Amino acid sequence: MTIFMKIIRGEIPCHKVYEDEHVLAFLDINPLSHGHTLVVPKEAKASLHELSPACAAALGQALPVVARKVLKATGDHAYNVLCNVGADAGQEVMHVHFHIIPRVGDAGLQKSWRPHKLQPEVAALLLSKMQE
Amino acid sequence: MTIFMKIIRGEIPCHKVYEDEHVLAFLDINPLSHGHTLVVPKEAKASLHELSPACAAALGQALPVVARKVLKATGDHAYNVLCNVGADAGQEVMHVHFHIIPRVGDAGLQKSWRPHKLQPEVAALLLSKMQE
Repeated sequence: MTIFMKIIRGEIPCHKVYEDEHVLAFLDINPLSHGHTLVVPKEAKASLHELSPACAAALGQALPVVARKVLKATGDHAYNVLCNVGADAGQEVMHVHFHIIPRVGDAGLQKSWRPHKLQPEVAALLLSKMQE
Repeated sequence: MTIFMKIIRGEIPCHKVYEDEHVLAFLDINPLSHGHTLVVPKEAKASLHELSPACAAALGQALPVVARKVLKATGDHAYNVLCNVGADAGQEVMHVHFHIIPRVGDAGLQKSWRPHKLQPEVAALLLSKMQE
């Protein structure tokens, strides 16, 4: 069982920010910035794409609610919302979780953005595979 | 009006991946990796924390659906889901959008993770401000 499931079950304490039937949010104990909060569905799934529609909807609905709480507590206005899926993408706890990471000066999510141009034939191939 | 609102209205074409009453998803024309897709609520809001509950729920429900399409088309299994809120956090189009960014070898979202330890008195202060 993951540490998040133990927190959901109340077997490990947390700094609770928000809770409803499907979702629990609590402060990250290893924050990237002041106010860094985790939003976790109660469904025991490793990956976002495995979530049930009901749980995914509740998670979506909780994100703005929790974000407003984080902004209220920190006084910040910029933040990143991040869900890492799979170890190759940086997922450490194998239970779905969204990070809400305030951006405060240089503190927060450090990322670089190196895009390329989407070629029309690549787009067509992707869409055809998605619709198969 | 933002470019995403023009896409939602059909005034600018897109490589459409998914659409429902509240959400449109399409390929990013400046992808970080093969299959990089944007998931956009139809509500004209700049920030995630401004979304209506109905639209936020629909957005949450769409994310796993679109992620499954991306995985199906690319054959990958790891990805990052990212929503940048505010220019300081890297938001470029001021209309809410989630990136689904496949991780393929070194291609994808480049990030570093430099956490610190959450101090109990900091946690207590944050929670008290959230509950005010």
